Amino acid sequence: MTEFELIRTFFARQPVSRADVAAGIGDDAALLRPPAGQLLAVTSDLLVSGVHFLPDVEPRSLGHKALAVNLSDLAAMGAEPAWFLLNLTMPEADARWLERFCEGMFDLARAYNVQLVGGDTSRGPLAIGIEAHGFVPEAAALRRSDAKIGDRIYVTGTLGDAAVALQHRLGKQRLSEDDFAAVAERLDRPTPRVREGLSLRGLAHSAIDISDGLLADLGHILELSRVGARIFLDKIPLSPVCQAHVGKSGWEAPLAMGDDYELCFTVPPKNIGALEKLQFTCGFHCIGEIEAEPGLRIVDESGRLYDPLFTGHDHFAGK
Amino acid sequence: MTEFELIRTFFARQPVSRADVAAGIGDDAALLRPPAGQLLAVTSDLLVSGVHFLPDVEPRSLGHKALAVNLSDLAAMGAEPAWFLLNLTMPEADARWLERFCEGMFDLARAYNVQLVGGDTSRGPLAIGIEAHGFVPEAAALRRSDAKIGDRIYVTGTLGDAAVALQHRLGKQRLSEDDFAAVAERLDRPTPRVREGLSLRGLAHSAIDISDGLLADLGHILELSRVGARIFLDKIPLSPVCQAHVGKSGWEAPLAMGDDYELCFTVPPKNIGALEKLQFTCGFHCIGEIEAEPGLRIVDESGRLYDPLFTGHDHFAGK
Repeated sequence: MTEFELIRTFFARQPVSRADVAAGIGDDAALLRPPAGQLLAVTSDLLVSGVHFLPDVEPRSLGHKALAVNLSDLAAMGAEPAWFLLNLTMPEADARWLERFCEGMFDLARAYNVQLVGGDTSRGPLAIGIEAHGFVPEAAALRRSDAKIGDRIYVTGTLGDAAVALQHRLGKQRLSEDDFAAVAERLDRPTPRVREGLSLRGLAHSAIDISDGLLADLGHILELSRVGARIFLDKIPLSPVCQAHVGKSGWEAPLAMGDDYELCFTVPPKNIGALEKLQFTCGFHCIGEIEAEPGLRIVDESGRLYDPLFTGHDHFAGK
Repeated sequence: MTEFELIRTFFARQPVSRADVAAGIGDDAALLRPPAGQLLAVTSDLLVSGVHFLPDVEPRSLGHKALAVNLSDLAAMGAEPAWFLLNLTMPEADARWLERFCEGMFDLARAYNVQLVGGDTSRGPLAIGIEAHGFVPEAAALRRSDAKIGDRIYVTGTLGDAAVALQHRLGKQRLSEDDFAAVAERLDRPTPRVREGLSLRGLAHSAIDISDGLLADLGHILELSRVGARIFLDKIPLSPVCQAHVGKSGWEAPLAMGDDYELCFTVPPKNIGALEKLQFTCGFHCIGEIEAEPGLRIVDESGRLYDPLFTGHDHFAGK
């Protein structure tokens, strides 16, 4: 199978057909029609074998996750996703693997009406780079830099489940079969909080998606907004499985291990009434407040300051 | 050095500041303002160590080339480049290497006024993925699918120089020092034909950039336009070094080895007068004509049909 047959066979079968795509896969560049009067939001995320996923990962999950993490970034800007490009390197053109990879990726693409419009493929070590495009009106964009003193800090869903599932898969922690089943989906097939991000337009001051861990990602909001924050451990939403894990192993999974793909966002007091009326299937919880004093203060159940040992994931740390 | 320090240090120093960038590096997504009434052209190309470049490549050249090959794709659409994203995996955060890589990339970015607006970095085998964005009015876009019977076929510059330089570097062919110096730049620092692509708006029916070799890339135009073509070997523009190489080793370098990053384009007879008035520093030459009969016929100096042994580069062929 040649590279071009491969591209035609698997990627040209992409299932979404948007009216704003003038030319998709197959020319030197895709030709796209962004809507007038909105900003174009563009993000890209890499998934590298042995760094972001285990080499024997189920390809359907990988296809889902590679797109999901990018849609999650768009969600965190309050942007509506539209198009994506795929850059794929793999050691050989494995048709069975590709079929399942595409199945996972295209199922998610269909669910969010995002069209694959281009990309590149090459022989090489297994790695996936996706670039996703969406739209957001300028005034509605949820930036990291707009948190204000007095804002309440919220997170969607629950934190730490993907980390606990990974600990089990790596053999570092043993879960029962039922418990693993309850969290594995959060590791393998995270749900990008796209609808939630769109609902937060006009309500939230700032937002970020939690990929490197709550402390690291909230830290980006604090740094770029030049503010500090106080969060409360007993307010952090945990699944029963993660709750049990925290009881045994401490707070690192929900605070610092990342891979959550939940939104962390800040809302001014005047908008809390409107926020509380929103219905998110994943739920959302207030975990703290933005303060003038720089730095992040973590308060434990007894009101004491908690000092985390490990504050976030960094691909180049520890060299 | 952490991943985030690395990003800040090297990539936040990008030298271009465009008024149409509402938010560049540093948030969940870049926020961009595409111009009203034009299409957004988006392309991406991967460069993988050991596949597209030698592992000991000079990093300044690699930075240049990674961006150049993407600007070349935009040029082939007749698009004006504006923004790009960089996805970089490297085994370790090597500051000296990154500094030189950025120097090559940003020198070219400055020359074409394209701004780095985002991307991702990760530990992993050395590979570079760039996504470039540009604009083109819908009626002016140079598609692969619009060649018409009777169009003359042109190429910019000269073909085969990068291939000859690579043969020398790989030890497969020996060039004199002067001869290698004359072609090495074409391999290491190709010039994207951006101004030429913009000049072809309204004149050319179709265009493609030659990355996989003239025969393969012209073949894409023929296939997508549902036409055939006849080209003449003695019309193919060659540098003196490549001419000498062809005399010894045959036509594979200019026809099929690729890495040229010249434009191949087709022009209807009525526009040839206007085309001939254009001044391209790289020059351009008519090499043949679009015909109704499917397939590509290559005619040699004596008027006989020439049958190439090797028709183009394919990353997954030969498995």
